[in-house]
Amino acid sequence: MSDTIWPAGMDFAAALAATAKLTDDSLDKLIPVPPDLEARVFEAMRYAVLAPGKRLRPFLVLASAQLFSVATRSALQVACAIEMVHAYSLVHDDLPAMDNSDLRRGRPTCHKAFDDATAVLAGDGLLTMAFEVLAQPDTHGDPGVRCELVATLAQAAGAPGMVGGQMFDLLAEHRADLDIGAITRLQRMKTGALIAFSCEAGAILGKASQEQRLALRGYAHDLGLAFQIADDLLDVEGDTGVTGKPVGQDAAAGKTTFVSILGVERARAQAALLVTQAVAHLEPFEAKADLLRAAARFVVDRQT
Amino acid sequence: MSDTIWPAGMDFAAALAATAKLTDDSLDKLIPVPPDLEARVFEAMRYAVLAPGKRLRPFLVLASAQLFSVATRSALQVACAIEMVHAYSLVHDDLPAMDNSDLRRGRPTCHKAFDDATAVLAGDGLLTMAFEVLAQPDTHGDPGVRCELVATLAQAAGAPGMVGGQMFDLLAEHRADLDIGAITRLQRMKTGALIAFSCEAGAILGKASQEQRLALRGYAHDLGLAFQIADDLLDVEGDTGVTGKPVGQDAAAGKTTFVSILGVERARAQAALLVTQAVAHLEPFEAKADLLRAAARFVVDRQT
Repeated sequence: MSDTIWPAGMDFAAALAATAKLTDDSLDKLIPVPPDLEARVFEAMRYAVLAPGKRLRPFLVLASAQLFSVATRSALQVACAIEMVHAYSLVHDDLPAMDNSDLRRGRPTCHKAFDDATAVLAGDGLLTMAFEVLAQPDTHGDPGVRCELVATLAQAAGAPGMVGGQMFDLLAEHRADLDIGAITRLQRMKTGALIAFSCEAGAILGKASQEQRLALRGYAHDLGLAFQIADDLLDVEGDTGVTGKPVGQDAAAGKTTFVSILGVERARAQAALLVTQAVAHLEPFEAKADLLRAAARFVVDRQT
Repeated sequence: MSDTIWPAGMDFAAALAATAKLTDDSLDKLIPVPPDLEARVFEAMRYAVLAPGKRLRPFLVLASAQLFSVATRSALQVACAIEMVHAYSLVHDDLPAMDNSDLRRGRPTCHKAFDDATAVLAGDGLLTMAFEVLAQPDTHGDPGVRCELVATLAQAAGAPGMVGGQMFDLLAEHRADLDIGAITRLQRMKTGALIAFSCEAGAILGKASQEQRLALRGYAHDLGLAFQIADDLLDVEGDTGVTGKPVGQDAAAGKTTFVSILGVERARAQAALLVTQAVAHLEPFEAKADLLRAAARFVVDRQT
């Protein structure tokens, strides 16, 4: 595999599509199905993680890794680990005990296609495998870098991050008194932490300076919030035929979101402001960060 | 903390009790409850992992680490990580979607004490934190050792090990055609893999020779099967007042177990044979392995 992830001048849409292909090929190899009775859990893991998707997080890993000339193979390993964690979180969030969703990315959710027990186990299996992939020598020649990836992902995905954010979100449904500060904190944990790790992973792999790492973290923080506001807007204004999920779910559930607090117009303006801020963080990287700039614009313009 | 885990000549029961105290103190420090709304998931994690228990796996880590004069702090970090994984697996296995158990270690199960969603998240949080703990510099000065611990635990706990074993077990409930070979394989995955990792972890921490590592793996393999047969026997002959869980569950569910295939007498003889085999593997370690020998006898003699 060449160490140029994308040819010079490739536009964002083409780079995103190329990332999805590379990531899915790697995931396919990382999760073979054994010939035994437990094959069912591997099939459910594959169903969840290979479901059609934008692969935005893998893209962020590859694009941030490219800033530091990281080997493609290293970046892809991390991209696969993050996509496994993302897929696991969707499988568990969709369970009847949690959000009870039947449809995801236009297909039956994992527990609908299999069953609840298999979905719990498939999520557990994907989460566990993500750490195995990060710890493998293929991910980086320096085990210190691999340990830093494991510890940083665990913080982003665990109770101090994504898992805590989901807990917060479930409790928030019963509280109408949440203000914009609380919702911002909730979303930083629930979706922001994994997006931030996707960007920071490139800096960890590339042994970037503390300054470069902070710049990427700043970019990712703004990007993550813009992403969530765009999600809330899609729930109000989206088209089920395009998004692949029902519209108006948040309002029907009486959920406090950026849109319910700010209204559509101010929410849209806030998302645009966050994109401008995100892009400003990338200045030190000059033209090399053009694809990350395009990603920030994509995040608020997307229809799915 | 002293680097002698247990004073010379301490007997097994005292060493097991001392391990439980050390492990619980460490777990208590590793999982502080934050002051925010997501505190609930941390409380559920603590409820699950600090529930009264034998702490057999932590004991196996400390006892195997002691063979190679590993620092107590290192061994305790790994012991905590394994206990987190063990607790997570119980929380998810007890869910209504899985075994639907209300009682565990004499107390309401996690989803009964909290709710199903919180239990799913608490399990996810414990599993994730286990890998964070292993990757921390506190666990070992050599990041290569830490990566090996992460990768080996992930294999033992994930779909090729414990998660696959649980999938296998759920599917096996509907099949009466399983023979002793299939049940042995199921139990090696479901309970044996984590017990084997507990013993192997000491060797990894101590950078033991391949020969020493294989000896410990052999010990752990036999110990794990003996442990499971003893568990099956307790389900037939145990006392709910002592075990803290209902008796006769396996038979009521029509489950194929070592006891249903072999009968009580032959199962008991097989467990005794496995203990003899387990102890034989420890010969190279001479008197230093006496506590591991006692653990093997304990595993089949225990009443809970």
